[in-house]
Amino acid sequence: MHLLKILALVAMACSACACSGRAAAAGAEAPEKQLALPSSGIMKVAFVVSDRATLIDIAGPMQVFDQVQSPGTTGFQTYTVSETRQPIKAGTLTIVPDYTFADAPDPDIVVVGAQTGRSEPYLNFIRGMTARGKLMLSVCTGAAKFADAGILDGLPATSHHDYIDGFAKTYPKIGWLRDRSYVHSAPMIYTAGGETSGIELALHITELYFDHDIAVKTARYMEYRGPAWQK
Amino acid sequence: MHLLKILALVAMACSACACSGRAAAAGAEAPEKQLALPSSGIMKVAFVVSDRATLIDIAGPMQVFDQVQSPGTTGFQTYTVSETRQPIKAGTLTIVPDYTFADAPDPDIVVVGAQTGRSEPYLNFIRGMTARGKLMLSVCTGAAKFADAGILDGLPATSHHDYIDGFAKTYPKIGWLRDRSYVHSAPMIYTAGGETSGIELALHITELYFDHDIAVKTARYMEYRGPAWQK
Repeated sequence: MHLLKILALVAMACSACACSGRAAAAGAEAPEKQLALPSSGIMKVAFVVSDRATLIDIAGPMQVFDQVQSPGTTGFQTYTVSETRQPIKAGTLTIVPDYTFADAPDPDIVVVGAQTGRSEPYLNFIRGMTARGKLMLSVCTGAAKFADAGILDGLPATSHHDYIDGFAKTYPKIGWLRDRSYVHSAPMIYTAGGETSGIELALHITELYFDHDIAVKTARYMEYRGPAWQK
Repeated sequence: MHLLKILALVAMACSACACSGRAAAAGAEAPEKQLALPSSGIMKVAFVVSDRATLIDIAGPMQVFDQVQSPGTTGFQTYTVSETRQPIKAGTLTIVPDYTFADAPDPDIVVVGAQTGRSEPYLNFIRGMTARGKLMLSVCTGAAKFADAGILDGLPATSHHDYIDGFAKTYPKIGWLRDRSYVHSAPMIYTAGGETSGIELALHITELYFDHDIAVKTARYMEYRGPAWQK
């Protein structure tokens, strides 16, 4: 076989498994397992919000969690957390954060979407929650907040497709993966792709806390037709 | 052919076209045409919000309109309108409305999602905007607001799948259609199904103001994989 053809086939195979040299260097995705419900049966979900947030990064997963079709009194309890309670803009919506980093209820899950905010209190919140074993979810360029906090070094991750190339240069220790709705970056860290990929990740998290049928029922209730999380 | 078999085939045909006796009585869907851009090239979109709003009904279409991949300076300008500027709850988010019905910029498009609110000023806003030929879009049970305002009588419409049966009893003059992402109820009225069906409708409206390629680019930018609007 001609050498160029062999090289082309190798390149195709690499593209097909959506891996890259960097990703391989950063390690494979963490093996998945069911997530355990807390004794209350309610997972508290803190959505970190700061100015110029991308609305759907918050609203997509929040809608999934708020309407999970789970049995009895089990489910998710969502709220917003920010550095202050000053109103912030999410798209054109003006949102008043529910809590500050200082007074927010202790969450089980932390969600960070695309937004401004890179202060030490902001990054320390992410670092602290990660260190305490909370389930950390980024959506879209929220992955850059995780990267800035240093919690993705040596791990595979994804983000909005338009930002992967830039992030590969800015954060070379992270194995950026393309064309993925979400990546299981570490046992308790998931990074989602852009915008509505956050819906995909939230449905997948629903599946891990409950089961596939409950995730399907939740997607159907929302009339959500996206198939990627049902891989 | 046996009479029962003929009847079964007729029933199947009726089911296949997703029509009902009521729908037929209420008239067929309005023929579609491209929508004309205003001279500014910017369509102003007023999202009516009131307490206990379903978040994704607002956030889904707003994200589509805010990020439309349209040429030059053309696009949509979104804002929220309510009876007062008092904060309202959309899911667990606390939102401060941008304008009141009295002082809002004159919109080209009005979007109404699931929410409380049935006051005379509220319904009069819907009636007035319809009478002035604005493009009226309902999402989810926002269709009940249109019904309460009397703008759907004698027309086909859709809503969230869990509410269609109840609405058929409450609003018998409307031809409720099932299993639809959206219905073209009248030349300037569209009704969407539940929740993320609003994303489908907004992408379709994008297609009508611009073209299919721009709607596809917008969906891709959002990493939205739902196929229904691409029928």
